[in-house]
Amino acid sequence: MTEFKFDLKTTDGMARRGEVTTAHGVIQTPVFMPVGTAATVKAMTVDDVWATGAMIILANTYHLMLRPGPERVERLGGVRKMMGWNGPLLTDSGGFQVMSLGDLRDIDVDGVTFRSHLDGSKHRLTPERSTDIQRMLDATITMAFDECTPFPAEKDVAASSMRMSMRWAKRCREAFVHRPGYGQFGIVQGSIYPDLRAESVAALEALDFEGYAVGGLAVGEGQAAMFETLEVTTPLMRADKPRYLMGVGKPADIIGGIARGIDMFDCAMPTRSGRTGQAFTRRGSVNIKNARHADDPRPLDAECSCPACTTYSRAYLHHLFKAEEVLGLMLLSRHNITYYQDLTRGARDAIAEGQFDAYQQDFHDRYNSGDIEPI
Amino acid sequence: MTEFKFDLKTTDGMARRGEVTTAHGVIQTPVFMPVGTAATVKAMTVDDVWATGAMIILANTYHLMLRPGPERVERLGGVRKMMGWNGPLLTDSGGFQVMSLGDLRDIDVDGVTFRSHLDGSKHRLTPERSTDIQRMLDATITMAFDECTPFPAEKDVAASSMRMSMRWAKRCREAFVHRPGYGQFGIVQGSIYPDLRAESVAALEALDFEGYAVGGLAVGEGQAAMFETLEVTTPLMRADKPRYLMGVGKPADIIGGIARGIDMFDCAMPTRSGRTGQAFTRRGSVNIKNARHADDPRPLDAECSCPACTTYSRAYLHHLFKAEEVLGLMLLSRHNITYYQDLTRGARDAIAEGQFDAYQQDFHDRYNSGDIEPI
Repeated sequence: MTEFKFDLKTTDGMARRGEVTTAHGVIQTPVFMPVGTAATVKAMTVDDVWATGAMIILANTYHLMLRPGPERVERLGGVRKMMGWNGPLLTDSGGFQVMSLGDLRDIDVDGVTFRSHLDGSKHRLTPERSTDIQRMLDATITMAFDECTPFPAEKDVAASSMRMSMRWAKRCREAFVHRPGYGQFGIVQGSIYPDLRAESVAALEALDFEGYAVGGLAVGEGQAAMFETLEVTTPLMRADKPRYLMGVGKPADIIGGIARGIDMFDCAMPTRSGRTGQAFTRRGSVNIKNARHADDPRPLDAECSCPACTTYSRAYLHHLFKAEEVLGLMLLSRHNITYYQDLTRGARDAIAEGQFDAYQQDFHDRYNSGDIEPI
Repeated sequence: MTEFKFDLKTTDGMARRGEVTTAHGVIQTPVFMPVGTAATVKAMTVDDVWATGAMIILANTYHLMLRPGPERVERLGGVRKMMGWNGPLLTDSGGFQVMSLGDLRDIDVDGVTFRSHLDGSKHRLTPERSTDIQRMLDATITMAFDECTPFPAEKDVAASSMRMSMRWAKRCREAFVHRPGYGQFGIVQGSIYPDLRAESVAALEALDFEGYAVGGLAVGEGQAAMFETLEVTTPLMRADKPRYLMGVGKPADIIGGIARGIDMFDCAMPTRSGRTGQAFTRRGSVNIKNARHADDPRPLDAECSCPACTTYSRAYLHHLFKAEEVLGLMLLSRHNITYYQDLTRGARDAIAEGQFDAYQQDFHDRYNSGDIEPI
């Protein structure tokens, strides 16, 4: 039986090159996890996702508990089997989404009661129910159910929110059914307050999770505050467990997160942006709908190996978006996920060679150089 | 240099097994051509299209002349190069679409003036302009610009419409720039009137096209009238040239067309239906959004080799459509095109073996047996 484990291969400054072994495959870190909200990475087949180099994907408990429902997913063999994904799967706890429902939800000490955004039906999530749903979804990595503290938060508010999440984390850990090769991650909260972050790290480590996430960031605090918070948080976290920065981010956020000791990232941005015509390239981001691309026979990113870049011109991609053709968003989604995978693969290689500082510098120099070479 | 030619390999009753050689590849007939209106077979990459077994695709002159424009397409190397399709391409003349514009168009003896459905801008198509645009699009097969006679039409209306199309066909033929491996097809009109169809066949054959289409069908006359018209038309057409039934159709229409001597078909139905959740299977058509599929772990069509059928369950496809996920329409488009390719491949094999009658009977028996085996 495969045990869930993390091997820290090497470090370069704070940056880490590691390997997570799971029941469903090995994950090389630092890693970017494409988001498959409703058990599909939007506009991509699972073969397309594999082809980008992705090693693990994420799905959302909130969306799947509403549709098609956890019991149905369980009967179909779990999310992985249902969607044909043979690699590891991480599910969030549903907490972030239900907390975002505003008037539609009601928090108590035990959990959250909320109404579905789809049909208004009433549902409840507790630490135990979230953990159980994630088991039914057959998540390789289950996340603790917590409150993502809104930003900004006064310190006393942030403290009580964090402490509630820590009490819930204990209940999640007790509800987790251990299976070989499966793991559960606790989530560090505490907003931008170093002492609260330290308290949260200590509370979680007492529960001995298989990994730890940094939550409550990328919620409006800005990149500088996010990086500062990471700098006071990751040094306190166990070195022998994977560290996951939730919901991050832009390419520069990911590079900066790696530089501050983060191993795992997820973000809907590359697929969401891809659907609106926004592409990430080695020379910056591009809005392919811009008229300047209409006659440009050059590829989106000459160094990219994805189908959008190897088969098509900027002019054709522009045409597809102007004509609102589905193929446009299919191709840009694949491109953006490929770019994110290339970015993290490059980081892994650079860390292994002790060249991460140079890699980071080169990334910034090129990313800010304009999205395409002058003709 | 490859010359455009048609080899009639064998016949079985009226059904024909043939081969069209073109500058851009060989087409085995009977063949179904997927429709790529705006230079993309909707929701499919060109690799996806190839993987279904498609040997030739169609694009629409009307849509491409409006966006991205023929001059721009020509600068990008033609539709095939622009969209990454390495096989043969057939373009329609734009006639069918502009005639359908109703109040937005004005027909005169020389051609049609119309306003774009996109922005109201004024355009004009004539036999010469349509032929020239198709050259700029780099169509392997160019269609004559004609009027698709509306149905029903009184005989005198059908006659004058057909005779105008025949005068235009002559002008199209004169405007066509001959290149090795490229061809131009004339279009037989005459509504449901056998003597008008005969007159049209004779008028076109005098112009010595590389192939001949039957137009003005599948416009509301019903399958019985369509088949009757084919039965009085195809026997008059040259046996040594390919015969193309435009805009047809449902699986039973295609099987019936092959039985009546047709070699080539195109229809937007498999991709259009696929986008709405309608799938074609060997046991009939399926609306995957129907609740009875929500828990069904079986494939859409157990005998199909497409990704939708080999990787996913009916339950998952149902989920994708209920959640309005792009992957749903991607998968059903691929499935439907694969089904149409399998249907015509089966017909080719059956004709070659002199078993087309049995193939036709088996198709009907199974197609009407219910879309799935009882559990």
